[in-house]
Amino acid sequence: MAWLEHTGRTVDPWGRSEIRLTGDQPATPGGLMAREMAEQPDVFERVLAEGLPQIRKVADELRARMPRFVLLTARGTSGNAAQYAKYLVEVLLGLPAGLTSPSTTTVYGSRPDLRDCLMISVSQSGGSPDLVESTRVARECGALTLGVTNAPGSPLAEVTELHLDVLAGPEQALPATKTYTAQLLTLYLLVDLIRGGDGAAARRLPQLAADLLARGEEVRALAQRYRFADRLVITARGYGYPTAREAALKIMETSYLAAHAFSGAELLHGPLAMIDEESPVIAIRPEGAGGQALEPVIERIHERQADLCVFGTPQAVEQGVAGFVLPSGVAEEVSPILEILPLQRLAYEIAVSRRLNPDAPRALAKVTETR
Amino acid sequence: MAWLEHTGRTVDPWGRSEIRLTGDQPATPGGLMAREMAEQPDVFERVLAEGLPQIRKVADELRARMPRFVLLTARGTSGNAAQYAKYLVEVLLGLPAGLTSPSTTTVYGSRPDLRDCLMISVSQSGGSPDLVESTRVARECGALTLGVTNAPGSPLAEVTELHLDVLAGPEQALPATKTYTAQLLTLYLLVDLIRGGDGAAARRLPQLAADLLARGEEVRALAQRYRFADRLVITARGYGYPTAREAALKIMETSYLAAHAFSGAELLHGPLAMIDEESPVIAIRPEGAGGQALEPVIERIHERQADLCVFGTPQAVEQGVAGFVLPSGVAEEVSPILEILPLQRLAYEIAVSRRLNPDAPRALAKVTETR
Repeated sequence: MAWLEHTGRTVDPWGRSEIRLTGDQPATPGGLMAREMAEQPDVFERVLAEGLPQIRKVADELRARMPRFVLLTARGTSGNAAQYAKYLVEVLLGLPAGLTSPSTTTVYGSRPDLRDCLMISVSQSGGSPDLVESTRVARECGALTLGVTNAPGSPLAEVTELHLDVLAGPEQALPATKTYTAQLLTLYLLVDLIRGGDGAAARRLPQLAADLLARGEEVRALAQRYRFADRLVITARGYGYPTAREAALKIMETSYLAAHAFSGAELLHGPLAMIDEESPVIAIRPEGAGGQALEPVIERIHERQADLCVFGTPQAVEQGVAGFVLPSGVAEEVSPILEILPLQRLAYEIAVSRRLNPDAPRALAKVTETR
Repeated sequence: MAWLEHTGRTVDPWGRSEIRLTGDQPATPGGLMAREMAEQPDVFERVLAEGLPQIRKVADELRARMPRFVLLTARGTSGNAAQYAKYLVEVLLGLPAGLTSPSTTTVYGSRPDLRDCLMISVSQSGGSPDLVESTRVARECGALTLGVTNAPGSPLAEVTELHLDVLAGPEQALPATKTYTAQLLTLYLLVDLIRGGDGAAARRLPQLAADLLARGEEVRALAQRYRFADRLVITARGYGYPTAREAALKIMETSYLAAHAFSGAELLHGPLAMIDEESPVIAIRPEGAGGQALEPVIERIHERQADLCVFGTPQAVEQGVAGFVLPSGVAEEVSPILEILPLQRLAYEIAVSRRLNPDAPRALAKVTETR
């Protein structure tokens, strides 16, 4: 696979990726990413079955030592999972939460008082030095630390007191897909168990995910629209906002478009000015309060006469020039685990239509080492 | 002024903008923004003289009731000031901090336990309904609340227990300039006084700002470079990151470019893939630890053969194809108050070169009402 060898791709030194790297590589560019996207229903089954006991154990531990504040540490795709967890913690647990800047520890040497704080560090590889170091310091400073990784033997898993394995299996494509949704599901189940739930809202996810993945042709048709776009705005509110961020990141990584995610409210506070009749905009408008809160934003986007594509309810999709209907009857707090699936596929299809290889974006490594 | 009347611009109903709206309007597009940018050294003098007593009073109050966790609530430009304050709180006060999502309160009805929390709500107008509502609820939930506004009679100032007026005077141009730097300076002085400082690092700011503003021609020459750009990446680390965000927002608002801000570390976790030899990139690399931490990122940007423009030290500027030398000997934590000045001017100059009116970007209002 010449295109694999020439990417300068780092093999995950702690995770399980290397097990399969010498194995059966798909013959076509994008084959790894396609395979890993397709595995997501099985991953959800695995998390719901094999993952639940370890999640319950950690949830019991956290209930017993209930923190007063939650800090979330992560970067890139895992940072978007952390953003999702921030909404869960604030809305479902009623705890104040913040996303940390690892640089305050690793660059500026901050040593904050973190008693009564839970720090959740989310990372696919568990290997980025700044995440590991800032988590280690947080534990020294009194935080209860929880690592959420796809690599139980990783440095991050070793420095945290508690650990959850997201059980996604080896991920070889550079753009994270199944590890992202496995992180979301694991974090949802954790929060739901902490508040006394039993994860019931997540049980239909494997089937719903399989149904969504079966609609790949619809997404391929949509992707044509962006064949020659060089910028894109993606917007959502509330629980949908991490989906907007993750969709933008996937599209930047695989298709090299300037894809820009904004919460609907932030969009109105300035960036809306750059939107005009030439601008492609994607709105994520599922059922629920967050989707409803996006309606006034969609109106403003229409006033700008933008090219609006909607991923959401049938009514919302009709408001756009193109769109994709999301399944109905899904609890809003688990909806992000499904919403991202057609958007991952969109990133993949745009890249493939541009003759790019989504498995191995230029300039990137699977384990990004930032300090 | 036909171009003012046709913008659909809302007059600030609580602030002082309306006092001058019927007065002497500049005859040229951009005249308001130019005047307000030029006022910044005077505003700094005012904050350092007239503002200090009120800041000291609030600092004393906060020292007496020292919070354990700080939440920051703001949007748009004020959100970038809040991001700056987050670094100050984490690094200089050693307290964990988080940026809130007002929607968790206003859309999802979250009522978190906020005892021992300080919530700092930053807003130019003090009028956006979601900020006012989420701050009001935070106070009910036990938070000590502090409003930082340019409008002491505003709804936000009324719902907060403590208030600081940033004393920037009426701001009429839609893109916030002097209110942003006045927010930064007020927040810096607050944090420095809380930790027992006397604001000494800020005393040279009025003179240094005047020196920077006198170099407008340098910025105008730089702006030519972006006359035909339609996307732009701006990057920085640590204290410089809010500057990158605010510069991107100014450029989006005034010039309608897709300007994308990334912390240097986040850039390496994915978005770097979209950068190639056609990509304009601006790096903010001042003296200090944050600037140094950007060096490996600058190397990676060079590997991508991007068109790199550097705002920073003389050595860093030499690494780019173009640049702007920032003053030396400025404490890193106050440097953002200066760094943004040539970048505000850059946004202005790009807009003017495109025959746009930076005073009144299309689609925006001075008080943005999000819920």
